Amino acid sequence: MALQRLCRGSGALGCRRSSGLQGQLPGKLVEALRAVVGTPNVSTALAAREQHGRDESMHRCSPPDAVVWPQDVEQVSKLAGICYSHGVPIIPFSTGTGLEGGVTAVRGGVCFNLTRMDRITALSTEDFTVAVEPGVTHKALNNYLRDTGLWFPVDPGADASLCGMAATSASGTNAVRYGTMRHNVLNLQVVLADGRVLHTAGQGRHFRKSAAGYNLTGLFVGSEGTLGLITQATLRLHGSPEATVAAVCAFPSVQAAVGCTVQALQACIPVARIEFLDDVMMAACNRFSGLSYTVSPTLFLEFHGSPSSVEEQVRQAEEIVQLNGGSDFAWAREPEARNKLWAARHNAWYAALALRPGSKGYSTDVCVPISRLPHIVGETHRDLQESGLTGPIVGHVGDGNFHCILVFDPANLAESQHVKEFATRLARRALALDGTCTGEHGIGLGKRHLMREEIGELGLTVMRQIKATLDPKNLMNPGKVL
Amino acid sequence: MALQRLCRGSGALGCRRSSGLQGQLPGKLVEALRAVVGTPNVSTALAAREQHGRDESMHRCSPPDAVVWPQDVEQVSKLAGICYSHGVPIIPFSTGTGLEGGVTAVRGGVCFNLTRMDRITALSTEDFTVAVEPGVTHKALNNYLRDTGLWFPVDPGADASLCGMAATSASGTNAVRYGTMRHNVLNLQVVLADGRVLHTAGQGRHFRKSAAGYNLTGLFVGSEGTLGLITQATLRLHGSPEATVAAVCAFPSVQAAVGCTVQALQACIPVARIEFLDDVMMAACNRFSGLSYTVSPTLFLEFHGSPSSVEEQVRQAEEIVQLNGGSDFAWAREPEARNKLWAARHNAWYAALALRPGSKGYSTDVCVPISRLPHIVGETHRDLQESGLTGPIVGHVGDGNFHCILVFDPANLAESQHVKEFATRLARRALALDGTCTGEHGIGLGKRHLMREEIGELGLTVMRQIKATLDPKNLMNPGKVL
Repeated sequence: MALQRLCRGSGALGCRRSSGLQGQLPGKLVEALRAVVGTPNVSTALAAREQHGRDESMHRCSPPDAVVWPQDVEQVSKLAGICYSHGVPIIPFSTGTGLEGGVTAVRGGVCFNLTRMDRITALSTEDFTVAVEPGVTHKALNNYLRDTGLWFPVDPGADASLCGMAATSASGTNAVRYGTMRHNVLNLQVVLADGRVLHTAGQGRHFRKSAAGYNLTGLFVGSEGTLGLITQATLRLHGSPEATVAAVCAFPSVQAAVGCTVQALQACIPVARIEFLDDVMMAACNRFSGLSYTVSPTLFLEFHGSPSSVEEQVRQAEEIVQLNGGSDFAWAREPEARNKLWAARHNAWYAALALRPGSKGYSTDVCVPISRLPHIVGETHRDLQESGLTGPIVGHVGDGNFHCILVFDPANLAESQHVKEFATRLARRALALDGTCTGEHGIGLGKRHLMREEIGELGLTVMRQIKATLDPKNLMNPGKVL
Repeated sequence: MALQRLCRGSGALGCRRSSGLQGQLPGKLVEALRAVVGTPNVSTALAAREQHGRDESMHRCSPPDAVVWPQDVEQVSKLAGICYSHGVPIIPFSTGTGLEGGVTAVRGGVCFNLTRMDRITALSTEDFTVAVEPGVTHKALNNYLRDTGLWFPVDPGADASLCGMAATSASGTNAVRYGTMRHNVLNLQVVLADGRVLHTAGQGRHFRKSAAGYNLTGLFVGSEGTLGLITQATLRLHGSPEATVAAVCAFPSVQAAVGCTVQALQACIPVARIEFLDDVMMAACNRFSGLSYTVSPTLFLEFHGSPSSVEEQVRQAEEIVQLNGGSDFAWAREPEARNKLWAARHNAWYAALALRPGSKGYSTDVCVPISRLPHIVGETHRDLQESGLTGPIVGHVGDGNFHCILVFDPANLAESQHVKEFATRLARRALALDGTCTGEHGIGLGKRHLMREEIGELGLTVMRQIKATLDPKNLMNPGKVL
């Protein structure tokens, strides 16, 4: 998700009491946790619990019964073992920037705040690999890599933890060229419910490919903490582009913008970013940032490569833009000029919120085959008009993934309900077009009711069987995904 | 695996009687199979069974008790249900080009020959997707796509079935740029042991990315038929490159060739193929094809893109080649000239076999972090000399994956044993360097003893738990992988 922040401050929606152990853990259990990490690293204070019971989504806060701050994997393993023997839920937490309520403690339990595990190890500039702990965010990693000529391209917008991004199968604006977390995680260290430590591709291994048995790494990427706690991720790095060019262009219709995207991909232009903003979003961006872009469906592009390669990419892209009736093609090379050009895209979230001062935002997350985009965007526009809702659209059009940023008054319960119903209608529209209800935010709490429709009865059964096998007591982030 | 054929004619090693039902199935079961697919599509004849009891590896033939030829997924489902109710093993078979004994019926059972299911459906040139049945090979698909401007890049050398390639997590020479089957399969239709039909990403869905629940597609890719029968694969296609340039260059050492590869990747040259041949292999190729390449470590490269982009790539690559002491840099643009330039690489397998007329070949398949390649290739050379074995090396150096083509006399049992021992030593050497025992051929029969060393005790336990969950009677291709 390339929006900067979603549902910031949703804690204002208030915290419900945890439904599990009602904020009370057996004294023995708390003592055992303290014995592992020390008294200051265990908290049962309401403030700490409430702070850990929510993410940035519109889901109501559900505080855990305690929060622990382990320092290393051995401590995580011991803490999990204690929770396991007491039958107490385990919820992972790092930056809290999730968008689907993934960290809410709907059954109470112990929240594992993993941010103090923040080591970056095993960097190999020859192998293009690095290993990170859950406290390392993608911005921190890229700062660390600055002088190496390498970078990690997956960027979900918020400065999320890389292990958290692995847990939710994050992607963002660079995915069209560099892939999602599914393509860029090589190995995971995972603490299972009972405290055992699994290395999904074998301890310390960081090869680029393998055909040795079941792809356990792939199974844990996107499992949203329901199968185990990710305590280290080995990532695939990429060479930093020598040159970068940003471009923006306007189109007469959604169809034209999507047609341009398809043709650019068919022409093998290795576009690094290709983002779509609809006319409502563009108008909002103009108003918010004092810009004067044409108010029509617009593509924001970015090209990476050698100086001459990016120039050629720009030239090819401009041709395709013109063939599709695009106009006002502008491009920029230097960082400052690029940032200025992309300002509208970068500020899209805030521009949307500014449409209704005091409002909150909720982002939908459907992803469809790219050919279905014009149809679903058209239907979504109609639905917004009929519903009287405000929801500018921004999307990773090269992936077929788009977000409708619904801005609403959280105090207006009827409107909040309308937003939820709209989101479900949109998800079902995507499902009917062979798409998915979530391209990159995950299922969390809010989309569980859509899982059966998306994956089918047998798919859901198989997922539940896998969950039951790896977490027989249903302690790992219970109530999520399935 | 980019070798044309491995262990061709290994049937000469002879067939062992099936150890399961001894070639005899209950008459009722055979009748039930015939009722589903018709009498001509069920065979219990020895010739058919022996033909289906082997692949192209050095593993001894183990014939199934019967072979069935279903025509569609409904028949596969019914046939599986019958086998399930009788407790009889189910073994998938398509082109039989596997390299690790994956189709051998070590416990007897019914072989499902899926080659008559050969439909290509749901091609979408806008979405870059297509669905194929198990009878469709990658060459057949690329022929079908010829006029669409799209292609499917994963090419394991042999003209394998795409569903079989999904089952074994195949890759080959293009993987450095386009990824392996793990990156290019979007959805699978799978018949489970009891006949139920699973769609791993939901029926008919063909989106580019999703964060909806566990990645079942990724779990089945590489499962080698041990979790279910793949009856359809939805694949991601790529735009055909406008221009292609092939190049070859010689290096003073393995270190120099690998250094050149690392630098090319760090410079973000989007090389499509980068293949390494050692001096022994080059000498063999010269002799086999009447060529006069320098006998030293050599890289074969291929560049894809627009005409000016590939020219720039070649220019950049040539610079890096020179920086690493490379010489004799030759390149070609037209198909005929390219084929001539790459002839040595294309004929590597036959050139290796020709080193000892009448010999057979066995290909190792380790993959290590690329920085470890010089070390492991050096050690492997030493081991070959000490063992008195002949084993030229060819590798997908951009992935860290290489094959040592061991040529030996199959009638000489001591030598066959030496080959096996050498392969295990090499695999352990790769494991000690954080690598894998199999980059792309799979575990099959021959590498099961290495799984624990690679993935660890807990990893193996988790894989076994997943297997037991999805195939509780252990009927799906039993005796493989785990």
